[in-house]
Amino acid sequence: MKGFKDYYPKDKRIQNYMFEVCRKIAERYGYSEVDGPILEPVEIYIKSGEEIPKQMYTLTDKSNRKLALRPEFTPTVARMIDNASLSKPIKWFSISRCLRYEQPQFGRQREFVQFNLDFLGTDSMKADAEVILTAIKIMQEFNLTKEDFYIRISNRKLVQDLFKNIGIKEQNFQDIYRLIDKKCKISNKVFELTLKDKGLSEKQINELEKLFEIKSLDQIKAKIKSKGLEELKELFSYLKDYGILDFCKLDLSIMRGFDYYTSTVFEVFDSSRKYRAIAGGGRYDKLAKNCPGVGYAFGDVVLEFYLKERNKLSNLKPNFVYIIPIKTLKESLKIAEQLRKKGLNISIDLLDKGISRNLDYANKQKIPYVIFIGPEELKKKKLKLRDMKTGKEKFLKIDKIIKLLKLLK
Amino acid sequence: MKGFKDYYPKDKRIQNYMFEVCRKIAERYGYSEVDGPILEPVEIYIKSGEEIPKQMYTLTDKSNRKLALRPEFTPTVARMIDNASLSKPIKWFSISRCLRYEQPQFGRQREFVQFNLDFLGTDSMKADAEVILTAIKIMQEFNLTKEDFYIRISNRKLVQDLFKNIGIKEQNFQDIYRLIDKKCKISNKVFELTLKDKGLSEKQINELEKLFEIKSLDQIKAKIKSKGLEELKELFSYLKDYGILDFCKLDLSIMRGFDYYTSTVFEVFDSSRKYRAIAGGGRYDKLAKNCPGVGYAFGDVVLEFYLKERNKLSNLKPNFVYIIPIKTLKESLKIAEQLRKKGLNISIDLLDKGISRNLDYANKQKIPYVIFIGPEELKKKKLKLRDMKTGKEKFLKIDKIIKLLKLLK
Repeated sequence: MKGFKDYYPKDKRIQNYMFEVCRKIAERYGYSEVDGPILEPVEIYIKSGEEIPKQMYTLTDKSNRKLALRPEFTPTVARMIDNASLSKPIKWFSISRCLRYEQPQFGRQREFVQFNLDFLGTDSMKADAEVILTAIKIMQEFNLTKEDFYIRISNRKLVQDLFKNIGIKEQNFQDIYRLIDKKCKISNKVFELTLKDKGLSEKQINELEKLFEIKSLDQIKAKIKSKGLEELKELFSYLKDYGILDFCKLDLSIMRGFDYYTSTVFEVFDSSRKYRAIAGGGRYDKLAKNCPGVGYAFGDVVLEFYLKERNKLSNLKPNFVYIIPIKTLKESLKIAEQLRKKGLNISIDLLDKGISRNLDYANKQKIPYVIFIGPEELKKKKLKLRDMKTGKEKFLKIDKIIKLLKLLK
Repeated sequence: MKGFKDYYPKDKRIQNYMFEVCRKIAERYGYSEVDGPILEPVEIYIKSGEEIPKQMYTLTDKSNRKLALRPEFTPTVARMIDNASLSKPIKWFSISRCLRYEQPQFGRQREFVQFNLDFLGTDSMKADAEVILTAIKIMQEFNLTKEDFYIRISNRKLVQDLFKNIGIKEQNFQDIYRLIDKKCKISNKVFELTLKDKGLSEKQINELEKLFEIKSLDQIKAKIKSKGLEELKELFSYLKDYGILDFCKLDLSIMRGFDYYTSTVFEVFDSSRKYRAIAGGGRYDKLAKNCPGVGYAFGDVVLEFYLKERNKLSNLKPNFVYIIPIKTLKESLKIAEQLRKKGLNISIDLLDKGISRNLDYANKQKIPYVIFIGPEELKKKKLKLRDMKTGKEKFLKIDKIIKLLKLLK
């Protein structure tokens, strides 16, 4: 089905690898995994913005309740926090399947999986800094460096204050956010015309576009008192303490799609600018009741494209060894159990397919090692281990094979 | 929502543990993980039987296609195999979220997660034996023994032949299967009355009930030629070779709910008979095109009840250490990074909550270890490690703490 994917073993290996990296880093920083139902009451997505409700798969259940297949996870986090009495701060992550009815396009699927990480229960910028740190650590765990990616950071409060300063009417803010969010997809001409439609003068449009060129907090020349500016200054000072300032760039043009962001917004961005944001997030202080929060999500679709292009996924192979018994099934099954007890993952041909068909099978599946067990092997109490990549074979005692394969794991 | 569950950290820890055990054993036997979409065309569930379609959550998408939230995973496996050209045998497992609109009751949720394991591409009973072996290994990995559970095994072909031998009409087979599947939930009276309704005589009912008392293949007295009997004999001989005969019992009363089973059917059954089947499966030779298969599923709901009752889930704790800085945040953050680099999972109080509120927080979350870092600790280059269970504290050098915590992991 268009926009949906079957995860065959090689696809699932990639997905598992990507999310295992995310899980590893989340746990390294003391975040706990959570999950919620895939069906949620449609109401919880009202605060997500205009677009999300249009993209939801919905159904009416037998009790006439309107439910949505979750289009994103953050509203579930907020609902779960509202429903329980939890000690603060709350440090959660999730690996959640989500669905949106979008036109399938590059980097988008109708069904996708997200890694979400959230720090709730404080409005301190220390939380924002830790959250951004974990996103950088995840990218580094994929063997990516500051040549590969950076974090674009903005603050909605500051942007609002700057908008006000230009004289843009507050009622137009949301529309202009959405327009800016789509800026990369439309031409400058359309961008400017739409702004004129919203009542902005040439001068205002000019000033607006200048905001997007600002590269450091010192460049903000408007004499404004802005909570957002204070927050950004604080945030950047913590990022400096963590030694990750090199990865972070101020960029007032980033908006993020969700209406519920109230302060910090940020994106993990591909340095080559080939892809849309690899991850994105921000601070949402009014989504859960009396519980400010900040978080982000990595989606599997863009991440996989990006990692493939950077050649970070080519080493993923089946994690088992394949035993080919040659008229020795009963004895080979016993040896297989012996190897499994030592912690090795073993598949074995039960069907007597013969050597060449078995090797073909192992090759097609990219199984890295094969063990042959024939009468000769049984007699000498040795096994023949074949490295499927090089074709090299070794005739070794079982203990040696176990040691060798454990090392290779 | 009724029948749906929020997985808070303690719930998710249990779920992750249960499926990690399943995944570990599946991989140990060379099965590869797969997954499919949560939405599938409704048609693929026709072969599942009468009940499944009634229980499906369905929706019509924008292209007017009728889709179901998958109620089970096996039809997805069959569809994926039909859609691709794969080398045989196919050894797959999946951990899949499924939904059924059932009345929530003990052991049932509307949304649940299943571990599925399937061996496809052969009709050899060697596959059935390996598949049953993995189910037993999973139970053993949960530290359960043959006092705790057993496998009930039957064969639909044999049962059909025995039905015919009694003189039951073939058109009534499916109804009688379903009735037998529900036997434990209805009274004997109702059971017999319903059979009479189907046209069975007193004598036939008697003979039918005698079938369910059969405990070994030798007890099958009817002189019948049955492929099913041959299959069962072969299967039991392989189970004997694996040394797992002690776990397996012939039980012709088990049916399993799905219509697509054609041969072997089996259940993992609680010895105390307190729970419905913990896992169930069978051979389905006509679900995928030209690709016979056998497999089973463990559901999370019954499994969790069962493991809780047997006290197998009580040791699951958060897997991180909590650092409480006492006016030393900047330095403590550096130490936290140092510990993380050594592979430890560390959460740290960023908010200066004070000792007693922090200990309270750690207690509520059942965090096993806490590290205090005050000015004294910094001066002496030592940290104070507190075992939250015993309350005992040790004042140790960082290296020692790392070693100690790695051992405890």
